[in-house]
Amino acid sequence: MGERTAGKVISMATMSLDGYISGPGESGFDRLFAWYDGGEVEVDTARPGMTWRMSPQSARLLLSDLASVGAMVVGRRLFDLTGGWDGRHPFERPIVVVSHGVPDGWPRPGVPYEFCRDGVGAAVERARALARGRHVGVTAGSIARQCLEAGLLDEVWISLAPVLLGGGTPYFDGLAVAPADLEGPYLVVQDPHVTHLRYRVRR
Amino acid sequence: MGERTAGKVISMATMSLDGYISGPGESGFDRLFAWYDGGEVEVDTARPGMTWRMSPQSARLLLSDLASVGAMVVGRRLFDLTGGWDGRHPFERPIVVVSHGVPDGWPRPGVPYEFCRDGVGAAVERARALARGRHVGVTAGSIARQCLEAGLLDEVWISLAPVLLGGGTPYFDGLAVAPADLEGPYLVVQDPHVTHLRYRVRR
Repeated sequence: MGERTAGKVISMATMSLDGYISGPGESGFDRLFAWYDGGEVEVDTARPGMTWRMSPQSARLLLSDLASVGAMVVGRRLFDLTGGWDGRHPFERPIVVVSHGVPDGWPRPGVPYEFCRDGVGAAVERARALARGRHVGVTAGSIARQCLEAGLLDEVWISLAPVLLGGGTPYFDGLAVAPADLEGPYLVVQDPHVTHLRYRVRR
Repeated sequence: MGERTAGKVISMATMSLDGYISGPGESGFDRLFAWYDGGEVEVDTARPGMTWRMSPQSARLLLSDLASVGAMVVGRRLFDLTGGWDGRHPFERPIVVVSHGVPDGWPRPGVPYEFCRDGVGAAVERARALARGRHVGVTAGSIARQCLEAGLLDEVWISLAPVLLGGGTPYFDGLAVAPADLEGPYLVVQDPHVTHLRYRVRR
C-alpha cells in the first residue's frame, strides 16, 4: 500500500444524527443536504447552473477542502444514483469508480473518470497517483467501510445533519472491524444546518 | 399532556459515531464511557465508592446537568442491565421505570424508584411531578424513541463518542416518526474523549 506521505485518504459524507447517509428508499436528501442551500454565500461549482448557497463557515470549509483534495474514489451505487454527475462532478476532480464493470456509455472523452474492477485497494492506489500529493476523498457507505476495514483510511469527515432518518444506508455499512476507534474531532465547524466534525482513524 | 412550562423532557445518552448506545451483545461500554474516566477532575457520585474522573469541561457540564434535572425516566432494560444501580443511581434522583411489571425485590424502602406499567406518557407525567419544575431526563433506546414518537420530547442530548461500534442498540431504536427534524446543536462541548451536543426537537 506504500507509505502515507503523499496525501491522506479521507472518507467524507453528510450523515444524519442516527448514522445514515441516505434514508429509507433513498429518501432524506432534502434534510441531509439542507446546508448546501441554507446560507447566503454563493459557491459556484464546476457544473453549469449549479450554485450552492451556504453559510459563511461552510463555504469557507468547502473551498478549503476543494483545494486540498486531488482525487475521489466513489462506489458504483453513488455513481449510478447521480447519473455520473452528467460527466461533471461539482468538485471537478479525477474520479475512480469502484465497479464490477464499466457502465454503458462510459468512459467519455474529456471526462476524468476511471472505472476500477480490482477493488478499493487498487482504486485508492490509482486515486493517489491522480491526486498528485493532495488528499484522496472517499464517499461513502460500503466504499468507506471497505477502506476502513483494509486499513486505508486516515481520516473520517462527517457533516452531521440535525435529523433522525430512522433507517436507510449507514455511513459505514456493515462494518466488520468494529469497534473502530477514532481520535477527535480535531475540527468542529458549526453551521445553522450542519455540524462538520473531523476525526483521525486510530491505528 | 399539559403545558411545557414546568421543565423540559430531555433524552440523554452517550452514543457512538454510528448511532449506537451499546454495541453488539451489550459491548462497547468501555469505548462509549471512556469520558467518565478520562480526565483529572474527580466527580463524586451518590454511589459509595463511585467516583468519576473527567475532563474539566465534562465535569462542569455534568454538575450543571445534575442541578437542572429533577427526575429520570428509564426503561426496564437499562434498569435490569445496571441491577437497578443497587438502589443508588449515581445522580440520586427519583426514577420512574417503565415496565410491564414490578421486578422481584422492588420497590425498596428509602429508594426513590417507582415502576410505571402505563407506558411512557404516564411515566413522563409522573416524573414531571417528581421533578418539581426541573427537567425530566429520559434514557434511552426504546424509551427515548417512544417519547419522541408521542411528542413528549423537548430536547435530545448526545454525548458523541469517537468510535464506530458497527451494530447494537440505536439511540432511537426503530423510530416510526422519521424523518424527525431537530434544531441545533445549540451547545457543543468538546472533551478529548467525547463531544457533547444538545439539540431541540423541532415541532
